[in-house]
Amino acid sequence: MNEQIEVLTLNIPDTDKPRLVIIGGGFGGLATIRNLRKCAFQVVVFDERNYNTFQPLLYQVATAGLQPDAIASPLRKEMWEGADYHFRHLKVLTIDSTTNTLSTIAGKISYDYLIIATGTRANFFGNKQLQQYTLPLKTIPDALNIRSQIMQMLEMATITPPEKQQEFMNIAIVGGGPTGVEMAGALAELRKHVLWRDYPQLDFSKMNIYLLEGGPVLLPAMSAESGAKSLKDLEAMGIIVRLNTLAASCDGQSLTLKDGSTIATRTIVWSAGVKAGIPTGVPDSWIESGRILVDDHCRVPTSPNVFAIGDVALQKSAAFPKGLPGVAQPAMQMGAYLGKNLGKMHENKPVKPFHYFDKGSLATIGRAKAVADFPGNLKFSGRIAWFIWLFIHIAYLVSFRNKLVVFATWCWNFITYEKGNRLIIRPFFRKDDLITSEMTD
Amino acid sequence: MNEQIEVLTLNIPDTDKPRLVIIGGGFGGLATIRNLRKCAFQVVVFDERNYNTFQPLLYQVATAGLQPDAIASPLRKEMWEGADYHFRHLKVLTIDSTTNTLSTIAGKISYDYLIIATGTRANFFGNKQLQQYTLPLKTIPDALNIRSQIMQMLEMATITPPEKQQEFMNIAIVGGGPTGVEMAGALAELRKHVLWRDYPQLDFSKMNIYLLEGGPVLLPAMSAESGAKSLKDLEAMGIIVRLNTLAASCDGQSLTLKDGSTIATRTIVWSAGVKAGIPTGVPDSWIESGRILVDDHCRVPTSPNVFAIGDVALQKSAAFPKGLPGVAQPAMQMGAYLGKNLGKMHENKPVKPFHYFDKGSLATIGRAKAVADFPGNLKFSGRIAWFIWLFIHIAYLVSFRNKLVVFATWCWNFITYEKGNRLIIRPFFRKDDLITSEMTD
Repeated sequence: MNEQIEVLTLNIPDTDKPRLVIIGGGFGGLATIRNLRKCAFQVVVFDERNYNTFQPLLYQVATAGLQPDAIASPLRKEMWEGADYHFRHLKVLTIDSTTNTLSTIAGKISYDYLIIATGTRANFFGNKQLQQYTLPLKTIPDALNIRSQIMQMLEMATITPPEKQQEFMNIAIVGGGPTGVEMAGALAELRKHVLWRDYPQLDFSKMNIYLLEGGPVLLPAMSAESGAKSLKDLEAMGIIVRLNTLAASCDGQSLTLKDGSTIATRTIVWSAGVKAGIPTGVPDSWIESGRILVDDHCRVPTSPNVFAIGDVALQKSAAFPKGLPGVAQPAMQMGAYLGKNLGKMHENKPVKPFHYFDKGSLATIGRAKAVADFPGNLKFSGRIAWFIWLFIHIAYLVSFRNKLVVFATWCWNFITYEKGNRLIIRPFFRKDDLITSEMTD
Repeated sequence: MNEQIEVLTLNIPDTDKPRLVIIGGGFGGLATIRNLRKCAFQVVVFDERNYNTFQPLLYQVATAGLQPDAIASPLRKEMWEGADYHFRHLKVLTIDSTTNTLSTIAGKISYDYLIIATGTRANFFGNKQLQQYTLPLKTIPDALNIRSQIMQMLEMATITPPEKQQEFMNIAIVGGGPTGVEMAGALAELRKHVLWRDYPQLDFSKMNIYLLEGGPVLLPAMSAESGAKSLKDLEAMGIIVRLNTLAASCDGQSLTLKDGSTIATRTIVWSAGVKAGIPTGVPDSWIESGRILVDDHCRVPTSPNVFAIGDVALQKSAAFPKGLPGVAQPAMQMGAYLGKNLGKMHENKPVKPFHYFDKGSLATIGRAKAVADFPGNLKFSGRIAWFIWLFIHIAYLVSFRNKLVVFATWCWNFITYEKGNRLIIRPFFRKDDLITSEMTD
């Protein structure tokens, strides 16, 4: 039906109010929207998804612990209370900063202020093979894809001769940051408590879960103690951790490492790196180290009506000479800062510079196991860190409904040792689609 | 990666036990499995999905009221307790009843007993256009597809000139049985309580929801009173109900009716008919009126080691000379009957014939509105029927977890008037994929 749409238009009314355009409804964009409510701007938000994703819990969707709806929140709902809010489910094609204009498939729109909050995407460092055969974990469809892949490969193992089953059962995770560590821990729990009961004929001593990290420690952004503790815990849970190990290539059946050795696996989770999702048309002069350089007011120095926040922005300070860490907190704080202060900036009133408050960092490893670093050299691990992790993640979930659903599901999973969301709901095209024919759209 | 799989095998051990093969893990197959637990058979279950779908609530997934995981239950979990259970996530390609063999992509398998429980699929009566452009509601991917379509079309309406918005906002439902009636009611609620707040710029007086029924009454399988009451309630909720109306063709932008009139809509839900999903290889001599004829022991008369249950089976009786109704109850009762009695049949012990106990039928129309018919000419409507409907659906949900999640979600939705699951998670390929690029798998 798609060829039949001839005329599209953005349908954004022209008003006397200054127009603020926000690209991206992630942590940064959402925090801006929530803090703008009483503003005198017309606010236009573009996102390619119609929901906000709580990315820190994507790994639990990927490992069947949570359903996707529990960590997503419809963006339009966030704008129910706004006076003059306009959401458009569109990709921004180009930015023209000389004319203060954006273009989309439905037409062009001018802006008085622009906030770029486009976050990051998976970075395969130009390796086409890794891009083709590994599974990133940045979006809800990514997470559902990994979940279906794990389950489909186990189903395949049941119909494969025993001597060939291992490549279907093994899982490799590339990248030992928080995503890789949390994913590895959750997979170890899934193997221990659920999979052997689901697949009684498979020999799970054959299922190896590899966690490959290019550097010398896990969780390199956290303290040395937390990195060492997570390594110890994961190894105790049966994860094969390989440090100083880089992925070189893969062919869909095995992963080859830089040292020439190979791992037989069809399931490779890619959590090794991200790059900023810089929109087309952003001038090269704005970019430094692959991100958009902003001043201490989150502004592009040469275009003071343009702002960048969150992972796409590079804001240097004495405490963070290489920029703020690429996690949720800076994005949320920058978004809140702009939401609260953009009105004053528009009226040329004095505005204090943005100051990042480091609330610490956490990673969960498994059932009642986590590591936590807090400012002032405070470090926790084990059960207490796990409780802190639970509490903080519930507290930061976007909607009250999300909080309730996640809390209830966690209680259920903890008591029953279960992960209920083991559904394969993606297509599995193979040999003329003879196995299954789900969801052909 | 798919071309690299060379050798597949079913990996089902040969034992001294008689082998029972079940095709399909729906209401019938699941009831069989649950009642077989202490049997002396080797049980092999084939299904193209790895989960059981609670089909009566699919329309709530399609209208953003429930998340898919709430009404699905992993089939392998049902087999945790079974002694010699084998699930294979495979399509059965053909049945050869002369050699008592099935074939799959992973090889052939012989059976001592076979239960065909393959249910139904959407029936487009050979109309290719209707098949291409309408949306069936038989599976969880179908329901997610409808949900995404409704939301995507509203997003499209926001970027379409006002005079062309109606075809994106209108929704037509073809078929006035329980699925059509329940879908129409849920859409009316969604329009009334949620959509106008999500899309404040759209004029929802322009959004027409049509319910088209070929016959002279809604809910033709229920009592005349229930049909009339549902018509009255739906019309009061703003649904345009057209009786004696048949769909003729559609082109993706409009639906043309048999009387020549057209409805401008890009969203057509197909609930007009189903046909039995008879596996390839079933001899013509087994089939009557498009279903597999079985005796009062659910057996194929000429092949007494083959059984058919649920919607795929045609079992005539004095009370039901045209066969049992195509709903969940006969499938569940037939499955339980076989699960309990197959052991006795194998030992040639006397087994009472199957007797269908009609527990009545229900359809919900909206918030605190439903109709219910019970044996003995007992009829209810309104709030009391709605409470009965809620109670029965919770009671019949497959797992305790499903019951809890659905109950909690319903409480939440009832109190908040919300439908939280408004996520677009399917791809939307249009004009070179410029709008969004989700889930390309």
